[in-house]
Parts: sequence; structure tokens; C-alpha cells
Amino acid sequence: MYIFQADQLAGLASDYRRDLINTLAGLKSPTLVGTVDQGGTTNLALFNSLIHIGANPPLLGVIFRPLTVTRHTYQNIRDTGFFTINHIHQDMMPQAHQTSAKYATGTSEFDACGFTPVFTQLHPAPYVGEALVAASLSYVEEHLIQANGTILLVGNVVEVRVQEGLLEPNGSLAFDKAPFLASSGLNTYLKAEKFKRFAYAKPDTPVQEIP
Amino acid sequence: MYIFQADQLAGLASDYRRDLINTLAGLKSPTLVGTVDQGGTTNLALFNSLIHIGANPPLLGVIFRPLTVTRHTYQNIRDTGFFTINHIHQDMMPQAHQTSAKYATGTSEFDACGFTPVFTQLHPAPYVGEALVAASLSYVEEHLIQANGTILLVGNVVEVRVQEGLLEPNGSLAFDKAPFLASSGLNTYLKAEKFKRFAYAKPDTPVQEIP
Repeated sequence: MYIFQADQLAGLASDYRRDLINTLAGLKSPTLVGTVDQGGTTNLALFNSLIHIGANPPLLGVIFRPLTVTRHTYQNIRDTGFFTINHIHQDMMPQAHQTSAKYATGTSEFDACGFTPVFTQLHPAPYVGEALVAASLSYVEEHLIQANGTILLVGNVVEVRVQEGLLEPNGSLAFDKAPFLASSGLNTYLKAEKFKRFAYAKPDTPVQEIP
Repeated sequence: MYIFQADQLAGLASDYRRDLINTLAGLKSPTLVGTVDQGGTTNLALFNSLIHIGANPPLLGVIFRPLTVTRHTYQNIRDTGFFTINHIHQDMMPQAHQTSAKYATGTSEFDACGFTPVFTQLHPAPYVGEALVAASLSYVEEHLIQANGTILLVGNVVEVRVQEGLLEPNGSLAFDKAPFLASSGLNTYLKAEKFKRFAYAKPDTPVQEIP
């Protein structure tokens, strides 16, 4: 067993600590966030920080790094009010990872990385045509994390798009029925396959595995 | 392609919408949060909302549902200042799922579900002895999401514990080298195995796959 305590963590080389703490958050959901700027240039950015906030109203959140440089995705969401999330599957690699390169302002990652922008009537933010599960969100609120200047941005889900075959009768999206990817840290992607599904747990009742 | 728009989402049966929006967040990292109350009773709770906030200082966050009822884990963190996160692997199932049952106040999920509390000298919050990767965090700050009353609680990592063989030379935790689980929605667990690892992406350079 390796044990790192606070003073040792503080003394680590910054790259080492970055990889340790990024992976410590466990398996994450890599998603492409689609936006458009006020001039009409589309933007696509890789986020590993998608999080469920609530189902009613339907809310998801993402974490933005501190606004010490221009964050195109953040600025586009504030300027236009909308963004899309587009879940990543194996056939979208390595192009989806390539969107994390620092392209010059005015370059669309859709063009640079070979993704197809698809539009909805609801707003100008583009979907990724290659995605099997995607959603549109409208800006709701944001919170500045005092400890490091990151921002939690919360969006309201205004549209969900799901490929046929991936919607279960109960409303669940079947992440085990297409080659979706999880991520670990900043550059490792994992395939996921179904392990088990369990019923709602109750005290004094053994856990029931369900189909 | 199935498309749900805002008015359709609002009109869904609440169970259906809950499952749709919970799974829309993609693959998540299920983790057991260990705490202790002021009377010394240990508590273990299943969270699917662990999120990376930053590496320097090392910060992780979790989302709490609205405090409309007593949330033992939240109250214990506020009372004692500390909590542990303990990543879930296959051998910890189904007991880890069972911790999500609503046990009576005064019952420890360690006892009820068969996990071994392990203590550090740093604070009274217990680790799960069966976990291969775990960490201790101290309370830093919290943010109330106005849209639905959930809370983002941010903790500072004060200790990391990693089983031998799961720490890469660069500091990354090897989530592909032990049978860790991802989760989808509230009750589905997935096995993860390595797909690919890519180098830091740069414009005008093809993505490099790395070992």
C-alpha cells in the first residue's frame, strides 16, 4: 500500500500530482461540448467533468478551469446561452481526443478534427452528428470554487437525442449496448461492458440482481 | 433517433425522467463515502457524483441531494470536517450497492453490509478496508445549486492510499489494472478495460497513441 499524505502531495512534481489527482476522481464520462460564438464559428471541446445535478428539473453540470485565459466554450455559453453535450464512442476516436488541442481562435474543431455539425431548431449550438447520445442545455447558473478559481456551470436539459436501440423501456440510456468510452485522468480511455444491475436496495433484504 | 424536447421531458413520468437524466450524465465513478458522527457511529454511503475540481491544491467534489431530510454523510462531514472516498471494484459488490439502503440512524453500513472500517491517524472518518484506492478529504467549501437545492461540497485531499501495482510511474492510478466498476444511472454497473491512451494533443499533429 502506497500512502501519500498532505505534505507529500504538496511536494510532488506538478505533472505527477496532476495525474495522481485527476485519476483519483475515478472513471469519468468524456463528452464533447458543442458551442458557437457570436460570429457563427462553431467550437467543440473535450470535457471529462460532466455531472448529474438533478432530474426534475433536468440539470447537468460541467467544471471549467479558471478563466485566466479565454475559454472559448465558457464564453460561447455565456454569449449564446446554450451548449450541447455529445457522448464519445470508440469510432469517434482519436478525433475526439484531438479536439483538446489548442486551436487558434477562429478555427472550428469540427473542421479541424473531422466532425459533422448538426443543428436543432432550438438554438445555434451544434451537435456532433457522429454521436449516438447527445443533449442540448441552456445556461442556468454558475458557482465559482473559491479554493482554486474553477467554475461549476449548470445547464438545463432542453433536448435529448438518442440513437434507436439505446433507449431502454424504463427511460435509461443503454451505455452497455454501444461502444461508449469512459476516461481516466487526461488521456486514458476505457471500454465499458455490463457487469451487473441491482434493484433498489432495502435494509434487511438481500440485494437483488435484475436483468 | 429518438428526440425528447423540453415540454416532453417535463411531461414524462418521474421514474422515467429520473432514469433518462441520470443515465444522460454518462459513465460515472461509484464510490463509497466514509464518515463518522459525533457519537462515534461510522457511516458508509454510495455516491455516483465524484468529480475532479483541481490538482493544486488537490480538490475533489461530490453532489448532495437537497437537505430536505437528514443526510447523515453531509451532517457528519460538517460536524467532523472529514470524509473518505473508497473506489468500488467487483469483489465489493453487491455489498457496496447495499449501502444505498435507508438504514436507521445509529446503524453503521460497515456492519450492516460487511465492510471493514480502517482508520488513519489524521481524522476519525473511516476508510473501507476492502478498497484498493481510497483518499481522505477535509471540508473546504460548498455551493447551493439554486435551481434544485442540491449542494456541491468540495474537499481537499489530505491522504491517498493506493494498493501496490496500481500506481503508474507517472503518478496515474491504473484503473485498467484492477476490476474497478463504472456506474450508469442509479443501479447499473459496468466493467472497464483499457481502450487506448493518447499523448497530449497539438494542432497540426496527428494524435499519437502511447502505451
